[in-house]
Amino acid sequence: MKIIVDAFGGDRSPAAVIEGAALAVREYDDIEIVLTGNRETLFQEFKRQGVSSDRIDIQDASGVITVEEDPFEIRRSKKDSSMGVGLRLLVDGRGDAFVSAGSTGALAVGSSFVIRRLKGVRRAALAPTLPSAKGSFLLLDAGANLDCRPETLLQFAVMGSVYMRCMFDMQQPRVGLVNVGEEPTKGTEAHREAYRLLQDSPFLHFVGNIEARSLPLGVCDVAVADGLSGNMILKTMEGMGRFFVDMLKDLFLKNPKTKLAAGLLYRDLNRLWRQMDYTEYGGTIFLGASRPVVKAHGSSDANAFKNAIRQARACVDSNIIEEMKLGLNKISDREKDYERV
Amino acid sequence: MKIIVDAFGGDRSPAAVIEGAALAVREYDDIEIVLTGNRETLFQEFKRQGVSSDRIDIQDASGVITVEEDPFEIRRSKKDSSMGVGLRLLVDGRGDAFVSAGSTGALAVGSSFVIRRLKGVRRAALAPTLPSAKGSFLLLDAGANLDCRPETLLQFAVMGSVYMRCMFDMQQPRVGLVNVGEEPTKGTEAHREAYRLLQDSPFLHFVGNIEARSLPLGVCDVAVADGLSGNMILKTMEGMGRFFVDMLKDLFLKNPKTKLAAGLLYRDLNRLWRQMDYTEYGGTIFLGASRPVVKAHGSSDANAFKNAIRQARACVDSNIIEEMKLGLNKISDREKDYERV
Repeated sequence: MKIIVDAFGGDRSPAAVIEGAALAVREYDDIEIVLTGNRETLFQEFKRQGVSSDRIDIQDASGVITVEEDPFEIRRSKKDSSMGVGLRLLVDGRGDAFVSAGSTGALAVGSSFVIRRLKGVRRAALAPTLPSAKGSFLLLDAGANLDCRPETLLQFAVMGSVYMRCMFDMQQPRVGLVNVGEEPTKGTEAHREAYRLLQDSPFLHFVGNIEARSLPLGVCDVAVADGLSGNMILKTMEGMGRFFVDMLKDLFLKNPKTKLAAGLLYRDLNRLWRQMDYTEYGGTIFLGASRPVVKAHGSSDANAFKNAIRQARACVDSNIIEEMKLGLNKISDREKDYERV
Repeated sequence: MKIIVDAFGGDRSPAAVIEGAALAVREYDDIEIVLTGNRETLFQEFKRQGVSSDRIDIQDASGVITVEEDPFEIRRSKKDSSMGVGLRLLVDGRGDAFVSAGSTGALAVGSSFVIRRLKGVRRAALAPTLPSAKGSFLLLDAGANLDCRPETLLQFAVMGSVYMRCMFDMQQPRVGLVNVGEEPTKGTEAHREAYRLLQDSPFLHFVGNIEARSLPLGVCDVAVADGLSGNMILKTMEGMGRFFVDMLKDLFLKNPKTKLAAGLLYRDLNRLWRQMDYTEYGGTIFLGASRPVVKAHGSSDANAFKNAIRQARACVDSNIIEEMKLGLNKISDREKDYERV
């Protein structure tokens, strides 16, 4: 299997990307990696790090699309950038999955408009795996589709369920609809209609409306949301995580007594940080694209890149795209049946 | 000054309400309190607690509106409940402000449709004060208006600024527009139009779009959001707070070493919890109602009720309603000027 990796995406690229790719090929002997980006710079970096380029290929590309640029430039002026070339390799079947830590917006546009979408899907959803008290949950959409029709939310529920089944070996992922209250009557008209669609679907284990406050407690495995709600949840979780870590750091450095306490807690706290650190769970997947696309966090280090590559590998391994097609077909067939009646 | 308090709102009512009212009249000698609710039960509770009912009056009411009931029942079958009677006393001018820890939805309806709204305001906004690394910030709307027009967001910005100026003595509260990205082009058409309105307003200190992840870091004093975004932020903050506290508790109770560390940190941690506990900042205000209405948290204890009463008192003291009228007039006059040009 061949995983394409954008060598110039992320704050620590290309060094951390090369290091992560080297870690990945060492750990998984069934993969090859294609790095996209300036060939000369990458050669130099391989030499500098003294790592082997066994099973790691390079595909030359010029420049990078930045987060400041209009994401749609990925189809225009930036189609020869490291991300643009990676997307094209994937479309052409010269790789099985694509990993990038570059601009989320550009990768969202690439996943929806460079790579084809699955039949019936209007736009790929950004689906990060986030930590909860009971392990983790998938949130989709986290910002690619600000305004969602109820039918789109049903598609998210199906794709998210397939993802959790394939990747975490869950038989019946619990699907929750993110809403402002728990009662079926809560929220906008779109929320209420989505509730009915999710409840009526025989292919889902729907557990009802979920308030954002319950998500960190682990009440569902797939949290379905419009992109605006999802984006607010994702980013508030990030911000609160940083807020708490900063507060605890200040607390521990306050005086000799608190420093002693920090020493006593060192190991356990480290484990806690790792549990909170969602780069450990791999990257964010774009569900709805017809090929696996994984977004690694912008601040990814070598280990985070390795984890994102592992996630891409698992998507290919579990044949997740075909499974999603089957799932989406089932709900669209059902809609046709309804129309016939 | 007379503060009306719903004696049967909140999980610990009426005991905590009576205790909080007694604390408040002891601390502030310029206030009287009117408690609404079943007179007999309240008499019994005063006797049981052995507190004085000096400067605390009772207004008989029958029943309570629960969170499960349709909020609009506050105008119909539940208009004689403890909350309904309180709202009516406020409308009739038989008190200067109203405090309740009852159903948020019912109080939102009451603030918008029982009490009159300020001129031009379509619906009162739920405006909690939330903790940040730099103190606190006001978030509005946190869920009363799921879908907001740009003009409504401008009104929120003005009312929020007046509130922070009056209550926290800020000369130029920094106003941020909550959005999915920082660039002016981000978000929906409503976001972009709101950005233009806020930027053009000479009455505001607008600092631009703010992502949800930056809010806990204290980048603005007034965070303006549509009710859907605001609700997601408020509840994710609540959920993450609980998640962290639970995780730390588990950590501290793990073994003798971590218990020792907990002992060393006891005092500092307690201060931290208090900083995080937003009931310390008082309740949530409904901005846009023509009289001060304060929502205390459902789990309020006596101290939280005292704080909510203190907040209501400060609203009356600082003449916040008149200040808000002036602020709203300024922006509507400006719009008229525009139309004339």
